[in-house]
Amino acid sequence: MADKSPLAPEKFPDLPAIDGVRLAAGACGIRYKGRTDLLLVEMAPETTAAGVFTKSKTASAPVDWCRKALKGGQAQALVVNSGNANAFTGKAGDGSVERTVAAAADVIACRPSKVFVASTGVIGEMLPDEKLTEALPKLKDALDGKSWATAAEAIMTTDTFPKAATRTVDIDGTKVTINGIAKGSGMIAPDMATMLAFVFTDAAIPAPVLQDMLNTGADKSFNSITVDSDTSTSDTLMLFATGAAGNDMFASADAPALDEFRDQLDDLLIDLAQQVVRDGEGASKFISVTVSGAENNVAAKRIALSIANSPLVKTAIAGEDANWGRIVMAVGKAGEKADRDKLSITIGGHLIAEDGLARNDYDEAPVAEHMKGQEIDILADVGIADGRATVWTCDLTHGYITINADYRS
Amino acid sequence: MADKSPLAPEKFPDLPAIDGVRLAAGACGIRYKGRTDLLLVEMAPETTAAGVFTKSKTASAPVDWCRKALKGGQAQALVVNSGNANAFTGKAGDGSVERTVAAAADVIACRPSKVFVASTGVIGEMLPDEKLTEALPKLKDALDGKSWATAAEAIMTTDTFPKAATRTVDIDGTKVTINGIAKGSGMIAPDMATMLAFVFTDAAIPAPVLQDMLNTGADKSFNSITVDSDTSTSDTLMLFATGAAGNDMFASADAPALDEFRDQLDDLLIDLAQQVVRDGEGASKFISVTVSGAENNVAAKRIALSIANSPLVKTAIAGEDANWGRIVMAVGKAGEKADRDKLSITIGGHLIAEDGLARNDYDEAPVAEHMKGQEIDILADVGIADGRATVWTCDLTHGYITINADYRS
Repeated sequence: MADKSPLAPEKFPDLPAIDGVRLAAGACGIRYKGRTDLLLVEMAPETTAAGVFTKSKTASAPVDWCRKALKGGQAQALVVNSGNANAFTGKAGDGSVERTVAAAADVIACRPSKVFVASTGVIGEMLPDEKLTEALPKLKDALDGKSWATAAEAIMTTDTFPKAATRTVDIDGTKVTINGIAKGSGMIAPDMATMLAFVFTDAAIPAPVLQDMLNTGADKSFNSITVDSDTSTSDTLMLFATGAAGNDMFASADAPALDEFRDQLDDLLIDLAQQVVRDGEGASKFISVTVSGAENNVAAKRIALSIANSPLVKTAIAGEDANWGRIVMAVGKAGEKADRDKLSITIGGHLIAEDGLARNDYDEAPVAEHMKGQEIDILADVGIADGRATVWTCDLTHGYITINADYRS
Repeated sequence: MADKSPLAPEKFPDLPAIDGVRLAAGACGIRYKGRTDLLLVEMAPETTAAGVFTKSKTASAPVDWCRKALKGGQAQALVVNSGNANAFTGKAGDGSVERTVAAAADVIACRPSKVFVASTGVIGEMLPDEKLTEALPKLKDALDGKSWATAAEAIMTTDTFPKAATRTVDIDGTKVTINGIAKGSGMIAPDMATMLAFVFTDAAIPAPVLQDMLNTGADKSFNSITVDSDTSTSDTLMLFATGAAGNDMFASADAPALDEFRDQLDDLLIDLAQQVVRDGEGASKFISVTVSGAENNVAAKRIALSIANSPLVKTAIAGEDANWGRIVMAVGKAGEKADRDKLSITIGGHLIAEDGLARNDYDEAPVAEHMKGQEIDILADVGIADGRATVWTCDLTHGYITINADYRS
């Protein structure tokens, strides 16, 4: 495995148990030797579910299954394997999913339509599902409420650190918890950004409300990050609510009692999404790109992603070069309205160019200092209206080439 | 300067003189020391002109000028400098263009509106136009019909070899010649792909017909290549027809007498565009991507560009890995219709996957051999209808990172 990313958080967070959620991880040798590669999560029978999936036209068999199963709005089991994505495996891939689901439904004693599955790893190879179906019954006895770190590790592929986050929230006087785990470090772009992320809460929330909140949250988090502009066939973000906290149920995501929950959910999703960027393949710098002054927020996001995805911007940052000309180029190619003669560029809080021109008194020294740091801030105001968006990405380094020119072989 | 690209043509082609076109190159020290950086082209008074320019919203001052001047449809002079793009230079940049144009109009003795200009190089620095206006009168005596190689060299920036092509054509019994020069090796993507390309012919063709033919030709050539998906603020493709060959004029690009001219023009544009890809920054492999079976030709091109722009596909090819799973991923993320269960992938003429599955009898050896070569062919059939398109790109290597993480500083 590659060295731990220099941008990794200092430590794995302490995740409390969540009433109605038990986890177990195992090693079934799908691809990796000597590490865990299978996760089983059991959830209380009344658990509601929401999901957001890749928009790829060649989505994997597990994604197809989850979309179908989600119509019921209920979940009782989640099975995740790493090492093989079960993508581009045709009808046989569907068969692998069905056998895995059947085995999990047996172990958890629930209907197959309450089992969700996700797979991540190599595309185009058959999933050796018999390894999963043999391993699942053995995981049953290992299920407990504490194994969050083990769970986050079991779903890793080229990740250099496990990713998790936790928040506590008050819903109308009832304390509830939200825990999330995620994996992803390459093939990362909207939509969806992360390959896999699973969020659990003991709050009681009806499935349509949960889906509403997840859609909004995904937009601000996983759909606002990019590593390499490539979109996986397997991207999956799911949110499960066990209801064990016993709070009152609300029929709308706009219910004021859910305000804090929504805020904290968004915050947790952004936290997880940023961890994915911090583990971007070869990343040496974490980059925030904010675009203001755009025609509207959608235009602002499109321009921000144009900057964040530009190989020339990303390599300049890798070279610690405050090459704002490349930022101008990326604003221009986004195709959204921008006033060349009102454009301003700020890096690390230092205004470099305004009204379409480099500042006369521009002092490169403090900007050069900022470029040497690990956290780079870019702000571009395009001078049209009030649209604003922030996205996050990492730089493009020799490390990315090394990892990706030699992954499969 | 970097070493010559391993994908460069063996030799610079022999370009014959074109009646009505004289060229001269000079060194005025805009940025580069000890090499030419200024090109002056004089054209016969009756020369017609056509142009296709960057779609960037932050286009450079010279591009703005050319768009305006092109309304007259006539050209008598072209001035190109390398080393400074005169982009993101505000009103002052427009002033630089106006002074350069005035000086050239003086030297050539023509109206300013018949002078075209192009600049390539660093963005965001003021063009030292006094260097150009001082040098232009000195170039007048050097003008001749033979200096094509010198001209192609004078417009280079990070290019590792000068780019040119020539064709001869028969228009209704009259022999005419087409010569073209181009530059570009990074910040290359539709639209427009190349940073600068200038094509000259002695054919007599009205400006609207010339523009029609250039639009079609650009689509098949410069708008079908990509190096890094980045679009320059300065991209310029122009076509000039001096009329000196004395052929009959035709009022429509569809006139059968122009068929051969159109074909040869397209062929020359594709030749130049492919040379730009062959000089792609850090390129070690030239890649042709053909998509068939798409909903229509536009959809096919969009899918082909999704494959050609994917960092994961490009790094796999750099690593000589026939990782067709990444091709499937790139088909999926294009957003165009594709039938996962009918998709087929062929690399180097070897069918690897069909009907959405890897072939049972797939023999990796000949494909691995193909991947070791310098010319890589990818064909993806997406199983929907008859749309087809081919685009060209290069691989993504450590060389690209090295060049771009250290260009300005």
